[in-house]
Amino acid sequence: MLERDLAAAPDVASVAELEAELERRLDRARSGARSGGPGAEALWDDVRDAARGGKRLRPRLLLATHHALGGTQDVAALRLAVAVELLHTAFCLHDDVIDRDVVRHGRPTVPARYAAGARAAGASAAQASACGVAAGTLAGDLALSLAWRLVASAPVEGTARENLLDLLDDVVQRSAGGELDDVLAVVAPVRPALTDVLRTASRKTAEYTVVAPVVLGALLAGAGPELVEVLRSAARSLGVAFQLGDDLLGTFGDERVTGKSARSDLAEGKVTALTALARRTTAWPVVEAHLGDPAVTDDEAGRVRSALEVAGVRADLENLVARYAEHGSRLLDDPAVPAALRAALEPYARSVVARTR
Amino acid sequence: MLERDLAAAPDVASVAELEAELERRLDRARSGARSGGPGAEALWDDVRDAARGGKRLRPRLLLATHHALGGTQDVAALRLAVAVELLHTAFCLHDDVIDRDVVRHGRPTVPARYAAGARAAGASAAQASACGVAAGTLAGDLALSLAWRLVASAPVEGTARENLLDLLDDVVQRSAGGELDDVLAVVAPVRPALTDVLRTASRKTAEYTVVAPVVLGALLAGAGPELVEVLRSAARSLGVAFQLGDDLLGTFGDERVTGKSARSDLAEGKVTALTALARRTTAWPVVEAHLGDPAVTDDEAGRVRSALEVAGVRADLENLVARYAEHGSRLLDDPAVPAALRAALEPYARSVVARTR
Repeated sequence: MLERDLAAAPDVASVAELEAELERRLDRARSGARSGGPGAEALWDDVRDAARGGKRLRPRLLLATHHALGGTQDVAALRLAVAVELLHTAFCLHDDVIDRDVVRHGRPTVPARYAAGARAAGASAAQASACGVAAGTLAGDLALSLAWRLVASAPVEGTARENLLDLLDDVVQRSAGGELDDVLAVVAPVRPALTDVLRTASRKTAEYTVVAPVVLGALLAGAGPELVEVLRSAARSLGVAFQLGDDLLGTFGDERVTGKSARSDLAEGKVTALTALARRTTAWPVVEAHLGDPAVTDDEAGRVRSALEVAGVRADLENLVARYAEHGSRLLDDPAVPAALRAALEPYARSVVARTR
Repeated sequence: MLERDLAAAPDVASVAELEAELERRLDRARSGARSGGPGAEALWDDVRDAARGGKRLRPRLLLATHHALGGTQDVAALRLAVAVELLHTAFCLHDDVIDRDVVRHGRPTVPARYAAGARAAGASAAQASACGVAAGTLAGDLALSLAWRLVASAPVEGTARENLLDLLDDVVQRSAGGELDDVLAVVAPVRPALTDVLRTASRKTAEYTVVAPVVLGALLAGAGPELVEVLRSAARSLGVAFQLGDDLLGTFGDERVTGKSARSDLAEGKVTALTALARRTTAWPVVEAHLGDPAVTDDEAGRVRSALEVAGVRADLENLVARYAEHGSRLLDDPAVPAALRAALEPYARSVVARTR
């Protein structure tokens, strides 16, 4: 949905061009790695594999924003677009290490692949797990480093470059901080309230998924501080809507579309908007009985889903997604936002809601 | 030993200045993180803690090289010096996640600390481990990002900046590749030969420990490609001597000095120069009986040490350290290397050997 909408916008650089630039950057990194030995080459293959098949939402948002604001730095924009995609790849790689996820986009994750290889070669469970953790951590380090490198080498000078670096800095630490808060919430003595969940979602996902692309694209197009501030707020709201939508899809989505098990959020005991909303409803006893049970069955997960639907929690969260998306759209009505940019971002706001319905 | 030698060199910027700059950078990062929530602030505290008490070898090598070559970019040099220290911090943080190390420098590692906290709060073993992995991974990401940021913002322009970024790029991927090779060697069907072990040591440690500081310092002082190539080769040799020395100290060192258990390399089944050398000696049956045994006792580790000494393996490795250090020194005799720089780096070559005796 979102892909179609963004692709239909006439002023977005072609997806083919983006894919080609991403391939070119990864190729160059991998040939440079030859002197780094088999490990370095293998890690770049892992990065390439992890980056494969993504929807490229982040780079496309960046290019759309830059173009809609009349930006003419096409070379730099393409480079930054690849950087935000690699930032996403890096976070996914490290996320899979942290969450011990074994499947992403319907394929085995890097840690799962290396661990399986080590097991097949006769390694103990602990050794195999160490190989998986090593590969996932180090591949993520390379993706993160290449993202930094691309922004650092963007063909802009002086304050403009510092602004881009400041933004990347800010986004990386909010995302990392949000991710830590998210993991620690599972073991917190008091279950976090909805406001905390929303704040974590904003930091963990909204920042690098929507704020970074939109603000980097705007900065590159020469946007002034006033416009950047408006865009930052709007992007944050849209980003929260996006993360809440992910929470919904993580439980109610079609596994063939989401590429991950609809049991996994429940099994991991994840603290999501869904669990926070469920707490004061009649669904809670059913949710609580299975939340954080690694061995939860498909049947039990189905019962939890039914309970959430019957108690109106699913509808409440759908409404919350819509409200955040609407709030983001309204912020884009600010007179500081040129009509062309509003038109370019509106499909995004619409699709964030549409994919949850 | 090394600390005293380098500190005695008259032309090295004072350690106090270096510590102050490191503190300033971490303070600034942490205040910037306030908007990133409690997680981001906690992660910066973890980075600061992990960076505490290091010997600062890497930044001091960088400053000594820059100064000895008559460099005058003192502000940039200090910034790069902090960057190489943070790169080291980042690798240590991720290394502790990968190796599941619980103690470094005699204190609990970040993963160990978070896991203990989660356990105390009632988390399951799996949840506690996930908290530890999350904190270690994310703190390392922040340290790595700050290292990139400092190099990217160094007050040098154009090709000079690109050269610095190229070097950082190269070093990060060699180190990551070397680390992966090192971990995979434990489960390799055929035990790696000494040449492979030396190659991995060169990539994993020599690059970021000696090559990066020396070459960054030289580039900043305006060194031409010829000198840079000589320094790169010499630094690589010294770096391999350093890693081989670490392997020696990991087994024969005083735990109170090394800050880590003299059993841990053995218990983890690490493939080091020591095990590669031992393979064709009478010590091998004793080594093999305990290598990779997580429950190896102090007594058993003592028997392995004795066997290695009796079979002459310890002496062989000490000689290898000396040979690599001498080779590095000889390379510094190249006429392209100014006498002042040779004089500044000689104490380093000497101390790499001296600490193993």
